[in-house]
Amino acid sequence: MPGDADATRKRLLDAAMKEFGAYGIAGARVDRIAAEAASNKAQIYHYFGSKDRLFDAVFNQLVVRTMAETPIDATDLPEYAGKLFDGFEQYPEVQRLATWYRLERAGSDEPLELIMQSNAHKVEAIAKAQKDGLIPAKYEPIVLLALVLQLSALWTGLTPEYAMLVSRTSAAERRKVVTDAVAALLKD
Amino acid sequence: MPGDADATRKRLLDAAMKEFGAYGIAGARVDRIAAEAASNKAQIYHYFGSKDRLFDAVFNQLVVRTMAETPIDATDLPEYAGKLFDGFEQYPEVQRLATWYRLERAGSDEPLELIMQSNAHKVEAIAKAQKDGLIPAKYEPIVLLALVLQLSALWTGLTPEYAMLVSRTSAAERRKVVTDAVAALLKD
Repeated sequence: MPGDADATRKRLLDAAMKEFGAYGIAGARVDRIAAEAASNKAQIYHYFGSKDRLFDAVFNQLVVRTMAETPIDATDLPEYAGKLFDGFEQYPEVQRLATWYRLERAGSDEPLELIMQSNAHKVEAIAKAQKDGLIPAKYEPIVLLALVLQLSALWTGLTPEYAMLVSRTSAAERRKVVTDAVAALLKD
Repeated sequence: MPGDADATRKRLLDAAMKEFGAYGIAGARVDRIAAEAASNKAQIYHYFGSKDRLFDAVFNQLVVRTMAETPIDATDLPEYAGKLFDGFEQYPEVQRLATWYRLERAGSDEPLELIMQSNAHKVEAIAKAQKDGLIPAKYEPIVLLALVLQLSALWTGLTPEYAMLVSRTSAAERRKVVTDAVAALLKD
């Protein structure tokens, strides 16, 4: 039944997200994912082809969700950074997966099409806002986007030692640091 | 002979830095490190005790080097960020190791003493410069330090897809983005 197949696929993706988030691509174990999803390795290979393609499926799903829930507003980049921050707070695994991806796929010559498209769309939105004089043009669009993304991820990139020092800060305070910092970049 | 022991230890640390940088803590293989260092697994356990403690030794060595080569100047944080950027350009493995550390030791209750000391020292330097009125006090010292570190690492945190888009930027241009962004944060 197609319903069963969809349910199995979803359970596998959910289990894979946990496993990849905890152990990365190389460290993830397909048999643990299968067990967690009450499935088996054969089904994983049937649905996804390989561990790497399963990771891509999880990662694409996350990017799609993030894109859908956080559309860019180039005329209000501080709030865009704040919304990205909210997403990282709500789904901590997103940043962990993105970081594993970066470490383990560094130098890869197989970029994910969806990410290329997502980046291109955001860069265009920023370029248009700059052209329309709505935001300063002192940074190249791609560079400004990199700054906004990096600042929005400020609190997810902390070492354990650092996290201990800032753990007393509230989510609202952390969010304000992010939005203030992006606003400061945009001042002339 | 002590000279031989020192040379072996150094070769093991160098080989371990490469291996951990490429594969992380879980993914690193002690036998590859031993082979690369023309040594053997018994010597690794003799000198370092375990794979985890070998990682700590590599990581401590890097932090010591970074601290020694990049002392903080709290009255010129843009240039401090620029010097951190220079370090990341010169030793790309530093950021990779720091990122593996963060991912694989997240939630660890065994913080590295040296990092705690290094952070505390930097926070004190920033607090003093703020107290002396040399830099704005709008961010808490620990938060300002986090912002400076995050911005200095702007270019090391890119996904492969993103890196493709910015690969045409020169090192001098990338450095200027970092120092300009930190300067913008410090404006009133």
